[in-house]
Amino acid sequence: MTKNKKVNAAILIIGNEILSGRTQDTNTGTIALWLNSIGVKVNEVRVVQDIENTIIETVNFLRKANDYVFTTGGIGPTHDDITAKSISKAFNLGYEIHSEAFKILEAYYKEGEFNEGRQKMVWMPRNANLILNPTSGAPGFNVENVFCLPGVPSILKSMLGGLKNKIVGGDPILSHTISLKTVESEIASSLTSVQDRNKDVEIGSYPFFQAGKLGVSIVIRSESQVKIDKCSNEILNFVNKKNIAIVNRP
Amino acid sequence: MTKNKKVNAAILIIGNEILSGRTQDTNTGTIALWLNSIGVKVNEVRVVQDIENTIIETVNFLRKANDYVFTTGGIGPTHDDITAKSISKAFNLGYEIHSEAFKILEAYYKEGEFNEGRQKMVWMPRNANLILNPTSGAPGFNVENVFCLPGVPSILKSMLGGLKNKIVGGDPILSHTISLKTVESEIASSLTSVQDRNKDVEIGSYPFFQAGKLGVSIVIRSESQVKIDKCSNEILNFVNKKNIAIVNRP
Repeated sequence: MTKNKKVNAAILIIGNEILSGRTQDTNTGTIALWLNSIGVKVNEVRVVQDIENTIIETVNFLRKANDYVFTTGGIGPTHDDITAKSISKAFNLGYEIHSEAFKILEAYYKEGEFNEGRQKMVWMPRNANLILNPTSGAPGFNVENVFCLPGVPSILKSMLGGLKNKIVGGDPILSHTISLKTVESEIASSLTSVQDRNKDVEIGSYPFFQAGKLGVSIVIRSESQVKIDKCSNEILNFVNKKNIAIVNRP
Repeated sequence: MTKNKKVNAAILIIGNEILSGRTQDTNTGTIALWLNSIGVKVNEVRVVQDIENTIIETVNFLRKANDYVFTTGGIGPTHDDITAKSISKAFNLGYEIHSEAFKILEAYYKEGEFNEGRQKMVWMPRNANLILNPTSGAPGFNVENVFCLPGVPSILKSMLGGLKNKIVGGDPILSHTISLKTVESEIASSLTSVQDRNKDVEIGSYPFFQAGKLGVSIVIRSESQVKIDKCSNEILNFVNKKNIAIVNRP
């Protein structure tokens, strides 16, 4: 188990439906929160079209720039599902029938239902490791540091748990949120001073409008609870001096 | 007005809060749907951290590869709002007080309320064009083909309308959706044949689970209604032959 090390990841969302605005991506949040909990920080997200060369180039860039890459989408049975073929080409691996995946789907479907469309889902990069799918049978797969998951959010969620022992995270990234009844401009310069004194802690400031009220949530993120507590105290210090109310948010 | 030309864009989401999973991005969908309606197709989306060099490099790549770039986030008053400074550096422009923006905010705030934090929001790339903000005063800005918008969804939405005459789109991208009571594997090979006969039309297949029912939505996208109708007829043809029910979805 590697500790005291920063481990990072990229997420690659493959799908025209996100780019057209037809579908709202929620997989980024699901994967990011899960990765945070096991000590992996998401450095970047890209959403790309269902175009083979684009997927190949993007995967080859991201897998060298990050410890892990998670792709979502494009592993179903239809013509626009080209992730497995693209990943095979990205790694210069054969694109072929995965015998273990074949056995899983052959057992999953009733006799006669394991048709041509479904058989497409067992074509994968040679020697890919399977990511088991407790919801709907068809597995995802993993080659080196790239993990390919489906686009349907409920299925993706059900598959993350099985990945836990394949990902070696660093220290979990902790966070603490302080929500204030104020506007950003009232606290901007004080908050800048806190950030300047605590350069290795990530401090974000996010305005909110909720139930007709204006407020600001300050989010402090670090691998160290001690550093978070120090920042938090410095923030509460100027908040008290300015007579700003703290609000509870769900 | 350029017509019969494909016009494309990239969206750059700037903000650690999206990458941490704390905040669900909805601005991609808002911008993409609006761009489609004026004939601009989103080719890619990137989400990056609040890091100056990352923003500079990403903007400089995207603005050369796309007709338009839309950034969201990082234009508020706090220390983590570094979009304006980063864009200035990306274009090798001075980062300075924008006199028109200064006048707008001076008039917007009550006397004594235009404080240091708020004054940060009038620092922009030299000679940037303003994007007016009917909701909360502080304008966005535009340099060449890059348009910088805020991250708060309601404010961003209110600003898009004012951009319409600054963007020259191609033919609007039309779409038609056919939702079926089936599973993807049942229609995969027929759908592949339709796609093969209609290579310049984008056909997507998206499974859905709704109210306990399984289904597939087929989305046909093109600038040409004639081409969409041709594809649609070919799809309805095999749907009828296979006795698959059509379902109405909201």
